[in-house]
Amino acid sequence: MTGNASSSGGRTLARVGEWGLLEKLVPRLPGAGDRRFLVGPGDDAAVFRARPGTNAWVVTTDMLVEGVHFDLRWTSPEDLGWKSLAVNLSDLAAMGGVRPAVAVIAAGLPASTAVSFVERFYRGLGKLARRCGLAVAGGDTVRSDMVVISPAVLGELPRGRRVLRRSGARAGDVLMATGTLGDAAAGLKILQSRGRGILPALSAAGKTAHGQDARAAAAERFLARRLLRPEPRLDLAGKISQVPGVTAMMDSSDGLWRSARILARASGVGIRIESDLLPISPSLRSWAGKKASGFALFGGEDYELILTAGPRAARALEERGWARAVGQVTAGREVKVVPDIPGRSAAYGFEHFDQGD
Amino acid sequence: MTGNASSSGGRTLARVGEWGLLEKLVPRLPGAGDRRFLVGPGDDAAVFRARPGTNAWVVTTDMLVEGVHFDLRWTSPEDLGWKSLAVNLSDLAAMGGVRPAVAVIAAGLPASTAVSFVERFYRGLGKLARRCGLAVAGGDTVRSDMVVISPAVLGELPRGRRVLRRSGARAGDVLMATGTLGDAAAGLKILQSRGRGILPALSAAGKTAHGQDARAAAAERFLARRLLRPEPRLDLAGKISQVPGVTAMMDSSDGLWRSARILARASGVGIRIESDLLPISPSLRSWAGKKASGFALFGGEDYELILTAGPRAARALEERGWARAVGQVTAGREVKVVPDIPGRSAAYGFEHFDQGD
Repeated sequence: MTGNASSSGGRTLARVGEWGLLEKLVPRLPGAGDRRFLVGPGDDAAVFRARPGTNAWVVTTDMLVEGVHFDLRWTSPEDLGWKSLAVNLSDLAAMGGVRPAVAVIAAGLPASTAVSFVERFYRGLGKLARRCGLAVAGGDTVRSDMVVISPAVLGELPRGRRVLRRSGARAGDVLMATGTLGDAAAGLKILQSRGRGILPALSAAGKTAHGQDARAAAAERFLARRLLRPEPRLDLAGKISQVPGVTAMMDSSDGLWRSARILARASGVGIRIESDLLPISPSLRSWAGKKASGFALFGGEDYELILTAGPRAARALEERGWARAVGQVTAGREVKVVPDIPGRSAAYGFEHFDQGD
Repeated sequence: MTGNASSSGGRTLARVGEWGLLEKLVPRLPGAGDRRFLVGPGDDAAVFRARPGTNAWVVTTDMLVEGVHFDLRWTSPEDLGWKSLAVNLSDLAAMGGVRPAVAVIAAGLPASTAVSFVERFYRGLGKLARRCGLAVAGGDTVRSDMVVISPAVLGELPRGRRVLRRSGARAGDVLMATGTLGDAAAGLKILQSRGRGILPALSAAGKTAHGQDARAAAAERFLARRLLRPEPRLDLAGKISQVPGVTAMMDSSDGLWRSARILARASGVGIRIESDLLPISPSLRSWAGKKASGFALFGGEDYELILTAGPRAARALEERGWARAVGQVTAGREVKVVPDIPGRSAAYGFEHFDQGD
């Protein structure tokens, strides 16, 4: 009898973690070694060329599961539609200057789901799709005990554009990040403690409250919105990828700490994160106080870009305001934070199977 | 509070059914009216051209949910890998002569899942991928309470190949099917009553049993295999699509009866299914006896092709053994079976939300 997917004594996904699973599986995936891949399994997205001389395509899929990746107590159907597409577009962005082309959406939904839920889901999704020039082909809608959304997105890599992998970082490079980090993780904490009620309440508060109260309310709303409506950095990724000397890139979905470890491992380098350089928004600073650095280091789901660049390129990126230095790429394999920030990543971060560190 | 996806008094997916949902949603999907679609949302797959003069791509996604689409008591990890890809390739096939290119696989898995389950899953998936020349880019693996597999597959439409939609049927056409129908639904009944134990037992029985017992065992094994290891009709679809006079095509995942209703509705025609012409395998005939016609009419998941063709094309297809006539396309909108077969489709067939008819 096959029974179910559980292990009887052997190794489980919980024990090896997603990263362990990937390392084990990737070399044996049916696509490994396929010469049509410019970038094969194991990066943010795969880059594929059907035949020599034709354009390359970038393809990715990210699945969102109710209770794991989102909570319908504070995620509206529009938020869910937006975010399920945004996390996939962020994977395209992470490869460089990719032009979004077409998406298909598979959705598992309970039979009790309201039709209006589905309509509102597609309204949120459609808003982001139109903004990015993405055509939505529809897809499959099936019955499921919980809500599961699984978009796949295809983008075109314009001729002459190079792709940025996770594996290109070199000792001496500067580690950089776009935008601010830790906001979405703080937004999650706020929503977990106060619920969605905060969002309309905040709007009202913003109008009537004054001074400190109004600022605190606006900060909470900003942080919650960073979680619920992430902005994939497609345009920025296109600009960054054209700066000579940028060596590696990925998105920050797993948080800076984990991203740095993944980049370091893929590139065979070490990384030193400077905790004094962490890009922290005024809202996170005011809401989290001394804990802001922990959120910025370990918090995931901001969907910013983490990249490495030679010193000259790094200066150019900082001057243009596209990214800020957060550390250095070093020889060796160690990933460390200086000065260290106490606390475990599990308190802020995000791994699919393995909550340990 | 958003709460959850359930309706409070309004219409639910269970009440409108998948078809009702699609009809409501498709005109409002973000992709509806997008001129890059040669075939937009609502067919087996979407056909997309990024820019004029470039090749067209065919893209589809089909999600499989544990307990809804498969049962791990009799579906091995290899079966699941194979089938989750096969149902997607069948959607590509349904559009005509599509060349499979690349797949991404999103998988939701319980944390207790054995690593060997994932390896075996990809072994089954890889076997079919290699056979079809499909490159597998990997994808996303996330935590979920049950197993959810959501591949998305991209194929290339070779230049000069036309696409077959569901909407091309014309009164006077012949309704046709490839292969035999009802086998997979019978296989499901066999596995539900006897479990997977039957499969190795059957192999042993085949070697030692004689006469009628051996034939019965072989028939059951054939029927179970039709459910567990469907063969997407890619090659056949390519040949059929080049026969002038073929007017519409879709796959038989929902069974002949539902497929005929969908084709008729999409094409604005009626269909008369001749129950004496139903293509029934010797195995189904011997296992199901008088009930064989009901399985062939209502049973889903055979992943054959249902098509319509003008009389001359239909003769050509029959002579070459590619498809067989099972009825006629008529004026009006009625879909009927002559002589009628008693029983409801729900007993054999498959609809995601609505079990009624």
